[in-house]
Amino acid sequence: MSSPRVPPANSLAAGVKTLEFTGEVLRLLDQTKLPVAEVYLDCRTSAEVALAITEMKVRGAPAIGVAAAYGLVLGGQAYLAMAGRDASCVGLLHHLEQVAASLLATRPTAVNLGWAVKRMLRTTRRLCTGDQTPADLLGALRSEAEAMQRDDVAMNKRLGDHGAALLHHGDTVLTHCNAGALATAGYGTALGVIRSAVAAGKQITVFVDETRPYLQGARLTAWELHKDHIPVTVIADNMAGYVMQQGRISAVIVGADRIAANGDVANKIGTYSLALLARAHGLPFYVAAPSSTVDLDTPNGEAIPIEERPPHELSHLAGQRLAPEGITIVNPAFDVTPAAYVTAIITEAGVLRPPYEEALRGLVAGAARRAG
Amino acid sequence: MSSPRVPPANSLAAGVKTLEFTGEVLRLLDQTKLPVAEVYLDCRTSAEVALAITEMKVRGAPAIGVAAAYGLVLGGQAYLAMAGRDASCVGLLHHLEQVAASLLATRPTAVNLGWAVKRMLRTTRRLCTGDQTPADLLGALRSEAEAMQRDDVAMNKRLGDHGAALLHHGDTVLTHCNAGALATAGYGTALGVIRSAVAAGKQITVFVDETRPYLQGARLTAWELHKDHIPVTVIADNMAGYVMQQGRISAVIVGADRIAANGDVANKIGTYSLALLARAHGLPFYVAAPSSTVDLDTPNGEAIPIEERPPHELSHLAGQRLAPEGITIVNPAFDVTPAAYVTAIITEAGVLRPPYEEALRGLVAGAARRAG
Repeated sequence: MSSPRVPPANSLAAGVKTLEFTGEVLRLLDQTKLPVAEVYLDCRTSAEVALAITEMKVRGAPAIGVAAAYGLVLGGQAYLAMAGRDASCVGLLHHLEQVAASLLATRPTAVNLGWAVKRMLRTTRRLCTGDQTPADLLGALRSEAEAMQRDDVAMNKRLGDHGAALLHHGDTVLTHCNAGALATAGYGTALGVIRSAVAAGKQITVFVDETRPYLQGARLTAWELHKDHIPVTVIADNMAGYVMQQGRISAVIVGADRIAANGDVANKIGTYSLALLARAHGLPFYVAAPSSTVDLDTPNGEAIPIEERPPHELSHLAGQRLAPEGITIVNPAFDVTPAAYVTAIITEAGVLRPPYEEALRGLVAGAARRAG
Repeated sequence: MSSPRVPPANSLAAGVKTLEFTGEVLRLLDQTKLPVAEVYLDCRTSAEVALAITEMKVRGAPAIGVAAAYGLVLGGQAYLAMAGRDASCVGLLHHLEQVAASLLATRPTAVNLGWAVKRMLRTTRRLCTGDQTPADLLGALRSEAEAMQRDDVAMNKRLGDHGAALLHHGDTVLTHCNAGALATAGYGTALGVIRSAVAAGKQITVFVDETRPYLQGARLTAWELHKDHIPVTVIADNMAGYVMQQGRISAVIVGADRIAANGDVANKIGTYSLALLARAHGLPFYVAAPSSTVDLDTPNGEAIPIEERPPHELSHLAGQRLAPEGITIVNPAFDVTPAAYVTAIITEAGVLRPPYEEALRGLVAGAARRAG
């Protein structure tokens, strides 16, 4: 459990290959198999990518966004192979619009998925008007997806460095679900903050809720932090209040699936409870997310659609029935934490403090400016 | 899921046989096998009873107390068989003192276990001074254990009737873990309140947290309420705040494993978080427990020992590893809710309101008076 005192930031999370595009397949680390086995899944078609997102083989808002971008590249390749000499840029665009619809239908809450798909379609439309061949256009789309993947890691490192300043040597951070390398193209958001603090020489201990029903905390966060030799303790979701009451927690840091214009945060179910518990114990509650998670078109949390997942995810585990037949199961995948409970939002452009409305508008405008 | 409008109270939980003494064995409904199978476990020795308590084949503070009382009866039978003609009342007492120590060592937090064991030893000492034969004394101990079992059910029904007045037609009650027929000699404490409200003609819907890691909510509470045709919805522990935020919960009712003299309540891990969430949403937070759960020798919650259970209960399920090797697991079985968060304590003698210190002293004195 002991670690080299100050690991270089680049070595952290370097062993986690969440997704990789080979030119022919999108290779995903199958997150349903962790921590028992490291199995890779090769998606050869956009439909396979969509299914992998639905079945949570790949999950985490930023990772889903990048996976969908590559799904469009695979969709474009299928179009070119199918159309042969009849291929055209307009035909490619129409095909990609259909692929985009199927990808967007997979999961409703995270906004990065829509953000990535729209960005890819925008690029397609822009280049469609030029004199490029369909193959050139597809090459440009692949470059765009690769840029999104690279940018996501780079943004997470900037985000992590901004957030690391909020953590102190000796802190114990409680996190929920997985907002790490596995939830992104690499390095992570909430876990990126922790990685940057560790890289800066601070001693940080992590507590993570197991995060029922999918157990992203126990299975994924514990796995990737342990790989980085960052001390991690798993607790059941219902133990968070207890460890706070005992004075064992210094701060809470979580990721986000969508941040509304007013600063309300949709994130993994249980986040709202944690925010209330943090408030009751006088602990800071931080949200770490890149600007692509902010949706200015969503005025507040009430407008965020909350995905309801299948009951069997809660009633069964490893083939064993956990609850009797005939009862009702509720299985929302996310909840909304009102902005009033969020101490700060950590982004790639800096740490935002309330009131969030104007700060978030500025963040999104700045990101758009930088993207040209 | 629909139910006859007003079931008679006696029919409720009648199908649940938590424990039964046949004269030769203590037959326990093995709660580790529910809800998949109804398997009964015959304990022939006090050591088997102690093991069943340690392994949570039987659990719930009042049920553990009654099981331990029968464990002493089995211990006494073993002494008589072993000593033969050399048996004496003093020899029986000494033997039972050893058996008592092994039973008391099983689980440290619930006080009903100590309460029941002490009561049995007190009776042994009292009768030991008379001119009874050891066989007569053992017969009296068996009657005492049977009285405790009968009294527990009767007390729970009185408790339920007092508590039912706090619930309204159409209420949705959130409960945690299992404070039902399975946790007691029958009828239940928190679930007894719900049963009495239903028997009084009120329409009550129940939400229950699955209650990790042992899943008493999903496995046991859902099972016994569904048997009684009381509508029950299972949620993950981390969804409690979300359903409260949505306005779906009217009140929270839980049981207790020990109530300190000042009203602090030890109960299943996660109870404290629920109490804070209830407070944040303006919901009443009720504790239902018989007077045997009150420990005036424990001044406050800080003095209550919290049992730490084995890590594998959290890291494994159905033979499958849920968390990676090499990480730390914390697995406290209980937490303490400060009296300030408890709206009322529902007992067999009535509903106690804060400040609790004097009310609890009066409750215990009254129970001692009634016991003669």
